[in-house]
Amino acid sequence: MDAQLDNVKFDANGLIPAIVQDHATGEVLMMAWMNRDSLAKTVETRKTHFFSRSRNKLWLKGESSGHVQNVKSIATDCDQDVLLIKVEQIGAACHDGYYSCFYRQHQANQGDWKIVGKKIFDPESVYQKK
Amino acid sequence: MDAQLDNVKFDANGLIPAIVQDHATGEVLMMAWMNRDSLAKTVETRKTHFFSRSRNKLWLKGESSGHVQNVKSIATDCDQDVLLIKVEQIGAACHDGYYSCFYRQHQANQGDWKIVGKKIFDPESVYQKK
Repeated sequence: MDAQLDNVKFDANGLIPAIVQDHATGEVLMMAWMNRDSLAKTVETRKTHFFSRSRNKLWLKGESSGHVQNVKSIATDCDQDVLLIKVEQIGAACHDGYYSCFYRQHQANQGDWKIVGKKIFDPESVYQKK
Repeated sequence: MDAQLDNVKFDANGLIPAIVQDHATGEVLMMAWMNRDSLAKTVETRKTHFFSRSRNKLWLKGESSGHVQNVKSIATDCDQDVLLIKVEQIGAACHDGYYSCFYRQHQANQGDWKIVGKKIFDPESVYQKK
C-alpha cells in the first residue's frame, strides 16, 4: 500500500482531475479524471490510467491508439485535490489527432476559436471502425 | 457578446476547470473553477477570475495578495470542457507561498509526498489577520 494515495482528496464521485503535461517541453496535453484505482494503477505501471465518466470504467490511455503516456513524475496541489502528471507522450495525446487536446485558442474580437494545434495523425486511420 | 463562450461546456454546476500555466516557463501553476461570469470577466479584463465553490462567489485571483495573473492566451480542449490559460504571474500563484500550487511530488517507495516547490513569500505576512 502507498500511504501517499491516502492524502489525495477525491470528489463526491470518487474522482480527481489529472492534468497531463509533456515532461520535456512543458506543453499541457490533456486533463482527464482518475479514481483511486486508476491512480494506483498509474503509480504501479508508470503508464497513465483514467476513469471514464461516460463509459464508467477504467482505461489505459493509448489502449486503442497505442499512444500511451510514460509517467515521469506525479505532483499534487496545495489542497491535494488536483494531480499534475508529467509524461513522455508516445504519438499524440488527443483523439482528434492533435499532439495536445488544447488545440483551440480564444481570439479577441472574433467569432470563433482558432485552431492552433498541430495535427499528428488521422483519427480515421488510427481508430478504425470495427 | 463573445460567441466563443457559447461553445464552452460547463458541468451540471455551471463550472469548468481552468488550468493556469506560466506563459514564459510552461510551469503549471494551479487549477481552479470558472463559471460563465468569471470566464467572461477574465476575457474582458485579461486578469483571471474564478468561482469559489466553498464561498459561492466570483473572485479576482490576487484580490487579497496582489498576486494577479495577466492573461496571455486562453485555449480549450477537444471536448471544450476544460480551459488552459497562459498567464504572467505576479508574485506567486499559491496561497501557501509557493510559486506553483503543485509543490508536492509523489515518491516511489516512500511514505510521504516530497515538497519540491520553491517558497516565494510568507503567507502569514501576505494574508494578514484582520
